Amino acid sequence: MTFDQWLEARRADLERALEALLPKPPALPAVIDTAMRYSLLGGGKRLRPMLVIASAEGVAQATGASEAAARDTAMPAACALEMIHTYSLIHDDLPSMDDDNLRRGRPTSHIVHGEGMAILAGDGLQAEAFKLLAREPQGHHPALMQRKLRVLSLVADAAGAAGMVGGQAVDLSAVQPASASAPGGTPPVTLTPDELRDMHLRKTGALIRASVASGAIMAGADAALFAELDQYGTEIGLAFQIVDDILDEEGSAATLGKTAGKDRAAGKPTYPVIFGLDRSKQMADECRARAHQALDRAGLLDSRLAAIASWIIDRKT
Amino acid sequence: MTFDQWLEARRADLERALEALLPKPPALPAVIDTAMRYSLLGGGKRLRPMLVIASAEGVAQATGASEAAARDTAMPAACALEMIHTYSLIHDDLPSMDDDNLRRGRPTSHIVHGEGMAILAGDGLQAEAFKLLAREPQGHHPALMQRKLRVLSLVADAAGAAGMVGGQAVDLSAVQPASASAPGGTPPVTLTPDELRDMHLRKTGALIRASVASGAIMAGADAALFAELDQYGTEIGLAFQIVDDILDEEGSAATLGKTAGKDRAAGKPTYPVIFGLDRSKQMADECRARAHQALDRAGLLDSRLAAIASWIIDRKT
Repeated sequence: MTFDQWLEARRADLERALEALLPKPPALPAVIDTAMRYSLLGGGKRLRPMLVIASAEGVAQATGASEAAARDTAMPAACALEMIHTYSLIHDDLPSMDDDNLRRGRPTSHIVHGEGMAILAGDGLQAEAFKLLAREPQGHHPALMQRKLRVLSLVADAAGAAGMVGGQAVDLSAVQPASASAPGGTPPVTLTPDELRDMHLRKTGALIRASVASGAIMAGADAALFAELDQYGTEIGLAFQIVDDILDEEGSAATLGKTAGKDRAAGKPTYPVIFGLDRSKQMADECRARAHQALDRAGLLDSRLAAIASWIIDRKT
Repeated sequence: MTFDQWLEARRADLERALEALLPKPPALPAVIDTAMRYSLLGGGKRLRPMLVIASAEGVAQATGASEAAARDTAMPAACALEMIHTYSLIHDDLPSMDDDNLRRGRPTSHIVHGEGMAILAGDGLQAEAFKLLAREPQGHHPALMQRKLRVLSLVADAAGAAGMVGGQAVDLSAVQPASASAPGGTPPVTLTPDELRDMHLRKTGALIRASVASGAIMAGADAALFAELDQYGTEIGLAFQIVDDILDEEGSAATLGKTAGKDRAAGKPTYPVIFGLDRSKQMADECRARAHQALDRAGLLDSRLAAIASWIIDRKT
């Protein structure tokens, strides 16, 4: 099975699971159901759930266990991570944040449902994610309960103020008012390179890292294997945001499915702004090399995780 | 110890626990820490955490266990419920929702920190609540893990689209545009009495009910005791919102610590609008009577829970 075939099969699994695990009216009011589904089932790369699943498969591969069983155990976490990612996109796109009208090639949630309902759809998806992690997979075996609580704690940390929300808060407060930058000129930079790295590790890196960690935990990785997978997750998490910054600089709305060039226009600190394009690309490649080294130490250089690292770094959208 | 002395002592416990359990910089960026603390440590009735604790104490009383030990076991859940409640207030007060400038007698979060940061502060508090429920109290005893997962699942359900978020979504979509109501006249009502009750049970009732249930679960209530406490929680949850509607109609900003008369002005469906003031007050008293009956069946008519029911229903703010 090629990587593309694997991706297609796993994405189909994911869409089925999301559909099956989402509550339906009358359990929840139709008005919020519609808004949540619009964003959650609206396409996207599904990178984070693919990482959860590939990581669980990797643990099975390393330990000689069943990959299919590992996938099943990790699927609720895969769905939960996608729910949290989707909620963060809805909120990030709001007028008071990044003010984006286009996401995944479609009008953003607040354009379609209004700002208040978009905020609530995001809030609802976050709660739904934690409900899913607490409930699924079902069972009261102590080892299973311990894994679920560990994943819950780790995902909440990654999604919250110490992670994604904290990174977005720094990003928001680092944006220069439009009037502060000369028209057409390079906007003032307010973060040091270390602060930029810290912001990116929180804003995007934390949830990507948590995706890899969640899959590893649910599949029962021991401490040594977990440490290598966690290193891999940290590296590709940072690489993802560096590449995102590069694409925002180089891409167009047609290929990205979202508004391009907004970061620089908004005076946001980005890797290309601080380090230049060439050095930024080099840094992304360095992340890939370190991610591959971690996989090598885990004996997983031929796993889907290696292909996902390249998918992240070589992507054009 | 009088009820007021009990409240004072338990509130002091809670403030200490919130302070101790909140992460601090550099674990999270200072900018989001400031916004989260502004709202979370900004006073308030602390009704939900008091319910968690009183419910846990009630279980101890009914089973002859230590009330102090029950309180300790339930304290993280008490803090988590207050975090979720606070996040919901921050988001409800936003311009795209209820558009309130005043809360707990102070300027609302978006007035002080800006809209984007207020949204993030709410998002961060929700994640923090689930992290706390997953981590505390620490330990890997199967019975403890099972209780924590049950509380996590139940709180996520109550806070999410099937509960609080769903109720707010219905409320938001039921508001009439200002232009649709004649100046000074009664605005059009769009919900049936059953729909209004359903909205209230979700919007406010679900989290109050979950507070009572969380305390009961953490303290180890058996199924029969849990059922009575859950009935009590359902009744006082509905009563709370009915009284809230009455206070919005009768109160002033000075006593409420928030803007008064906004619901009717916004054309919101409320109990007084649909049933009139007298019948609304009668309905709140009927809730109290049913709540007391449930406590009576549990042998807990002399517990703090009975006093809290009257506190909710007789309050003037």
